[in-house]
Amino acid sequence: MTMLAITGGRVLRPDLTVTSADVLIDQDAGEIREIGTDLAGAADETLEAAESLVTPGFVNGHCHVAMTLLRGYADDKPLEAWLQEDIWPAEGELTAADVRAGAELGLVELIKSGTTAFADMYFHVPDVAVAVEEAGLRARLGHGIVTVGKDGEAAREDATTSLEIAREYDGAADGRISTAFMPHSLTTVGSEYLAEFVPEAREAGVPVHYHANETVDEVAPIVDEHGQRPLEYAAEHGLLEPEDFVAHGVHVDESEIDLLAAAGTGVIHCPASNMKLASGMAPVERMLEAGVTVGLGTDGAASNNDLSMLDEARDAAMLGKLAADDASAVPAEAVVDMLTRGSADAIGLESGRLEAGAPADLAVIDLEQPHLTPRHDLVSHLAYAAAAADVRHTVCDGQVLMRDREVLTLDEAGVRERAVETAASLSARVE
Amino acid sequence: MTMLAITGGRVLRPDLTVTSADVLIDQDAGEIREIGTDLAGAADETLEAAESLVTPGFVNGHCHVAMTLLRGYADDKPLEAWLQEDIWPAEGELTAADVRAGAELGLVELIKSGTTAFADMYFHVPDVAVAVEEAGLRARLGHGIVTVGKDGEAAREDATTSLEIAREYDGAADGRISTAFMPHSLTTVGSEYLAEFVPEAREAGVPVHYHANETVDEVAPIVDEHGQRPLEYAAEHGLLEPEDFVAHGVHVDESEIDLLAAAGTGVIHCPASNMKLASGMAPVERMLEAGVTVGLGTDGAASNNDLSMLDEARDAAMLGKLAADDASAVPAEAVVDMLTRGSADAIGLESGRLEAGAPADLAVIDLEQPHLTPRHDLVSHLAYAAAAADVRHTVCDGQVLMRDREVLTLDEAGVRERAVETAASLSARVE
Repeated sequence: MTMLAITGGRVLRPDLTVTSADVLIDQDAGEIREIGTDLAGAADETLEAAESLVTPGFVNGHCHVAMTLLRGYADDKPLEAWLQEDIWPAEGELTAADVRAGAELGLVELIKSGTTAFADMYFHVPDVAVAVEEAGLRARLGHGIVTVGKDGEAAREDATTSLEIAREYDGAADGRISTAFMPHSLTTVGSEYLAEFVPEAREAGVPVHYHANETVDEVAPIVDEHGQRPLEYAAEHGLLEPEDFVAHGVHVDESEIDLLAAAGTGVIHCPASNMKLASGMAPVERMLEAGVTVGLGTDGAASNNDLSMLDEARDAAMLGKLAADDASAVPAEAVVDMLTRGSADAIGLESGRLEAGAPADLAVIDLEQPHLTPRHDLVSHLAYAAAAADVRHTVCDGQVLMRDREVLTLDEAGVRERAVETAASLSARVE
Repeated sequence: MTMLAITGGRVLRPDLTVTSADVLIDQDAGEIREIGTDLAGAADETLEAAESLVTPGFVNGHCHVAMTLLRGYADDKPLEAWLQEDIWPAEGELTAADVRAGAELGLVELIKSGTTAFADMYFHVPDVAVAVEEAGLRARLGHGIVTVGKDGEAAREDATTSLEIAREYDGAADGRISTAFMPHSLTTVGSEYLAEFVPEAREAGVPVHYHANETVDEVAPIVDEHGQRPLEYAAEHGLLEPEDFVAHGVHVDESEIDLLAAAGTGVIHCPASNMKLASGMAPVERMLEAGVTVGLGTDGAASNNDLSMLDEARDAAMLGKLAADDASAVPAEAVVDMLTRGSADAIGLESGRLEAGAPADLAVIDLEQPHLTPRHDLVSHLAYAAAAADVRHTVCDGQVLMRDREVLTLDEAGVRERAVETAASLSARVE
């Protein structure tokens, strides 16, 4: 049994109190063994956490991690034009090797910003999985299905790929990788494919993840065609189970909030993407009041433009207040909970809390920063003031992924260089 | 003549193009002498900028810098309750020494996030000025006046203090400090004091800076009492001159936007504060279209909760889109312009552009970061992805304030320590 101790830090507990304690980790089991005082003696290795906050690793509930290649490629455009004129043509050129290069860049960014787990919808998923295995992160991966604009054969092939990948990779990387069946959205996947494939996903024991109610343009066609709100339609098609999770949920009405709460289906709120694409303001305070499990996600880097979950927490607190027209809405405690336990619960992971028996997924944040001084309230600092660069160490599944800002599992400089080359080659191919 | 060269960087020009160039600075004059190739030979000292973006130093157009002491002290409350229950009682206890300690903390934070100039409204201004002189930044300082709730003598004393400070400190610190006459807002200062003191401020040659149209609660009383929109009222009281600048401008209607554009009065947009206090969304795209000079400000750290202008730029781009319901509104170029030239013009400084003859106020940003990879568009990176910790060097008035993340003009550790002690003592005094 190999033991790791995080020593001398202030530890954020599941009830959001902060206590001075060491964290002892069983690295073979990938679990927290004990949180208490003077635990360094029991450890084979230690990570220094003096003047630092030890928090659960952040959980990014909705991402397209390889889209780091398209960071800054096309900004300041509405969702439809941006997708059709810029993003989809570029993505059409992406090879498996490109996706791997983009995924590695994204994984370095996640590790450096304290994120230890994420849910990802993309294509060339086997290459994303190889990168995740190497990086040491935890992930729920899936192949995004689009059937509109495809003939029946191509559409079924896409759905079949998503199902096969969900089956094949569930439990990969010693269990760090789990999967989901991922129809892109309720408007981009025909109902006949949902009817055929969702039962197969249930049989395979994997959840379903999809974009829902992101823009008004995604709501209207379903209301027009089916006479139902999108999440009513989703429920009818078996897509609103407790293990499922939807991305965005911006334009949900009260009946849909009730549906989500009753079903136990999680919502991944993506405030930065929703603002940047002018999609709207999700009613986060209302969802929390109704008992919906809400997590946070960055969405892809092209609509954000970074993958820092600490930015997302600050954005969620601020946008949540604006949406509710109430400065007491979505307080610091709520976003810190969404950032950790909320996202983990939504995407079906045990991470997101620091307690004995929980997965050893955590981040250590350097508090000796001017913007984290003084220290009236560390939960407030985590929600409003801490930044990606304040993360000193990142630990996932008991393994140290970053120590003193050095990523140990991937060669950061090489990853950045390959991403630059890949992006240049991609730009040339698209032109 | 002592010369400093910033070598090997990518330089952001006033037209927002980026070229590879050196920047040669005349340190005695505090001015940029030349931007061109191979200028290192002419310099006594060099700052390395390879793989870095050289940008104008950021200009924080509205701040209460000593409020860093109250960072995280009271969050998630509406403006009125927050001010009356938390902020004002705490501020009532602040001594001159406390303000100095808080200001120094804020100045360290500004320097570390690439800000080289700021406008500040607070009290114990002489102590803020001493800190600014020491820190090497450029600032427009003023004493904030509140007359409501005070008897005539106390009210006149407050206004007199603001006027005297504006007169005495204008041109201090070898011209790095300028001043303004600063009535807190149109609702917290009686019109009789505006009538008496604003002409004296004009005679002293200083601009007027005040909060305006921040919340709906600030608009309604003026409409009710005077039958005028707040900025109409301001114009009538002589507070809408080209050299003046207002903070916030959230709830301005079309007639007020036209007034601002015609008057040439600048608006400092504070997106983070406006979201956190649920004040609302300023119509920034409309103001830009109308030709209003718009800058950016952090407001105080208690409503933000950091002083990073790069956060503010990202917030402004995102919130501007949401406010306009248009993802093409307030694009990256617009926020980068607001972050630099816009704020400088609004608060009446020559800074904010890198060109020969301009003040040598600049920041050097390390591009070798995963979140700044690849490099499709550096203006996009500055608006959306760059973070405070990416700033390598900060130069103001030709002097190096930070080199390789080390602040040279203030003792960062000592400043943080004094701020912690001061905040603890303040909390104890308030209880």
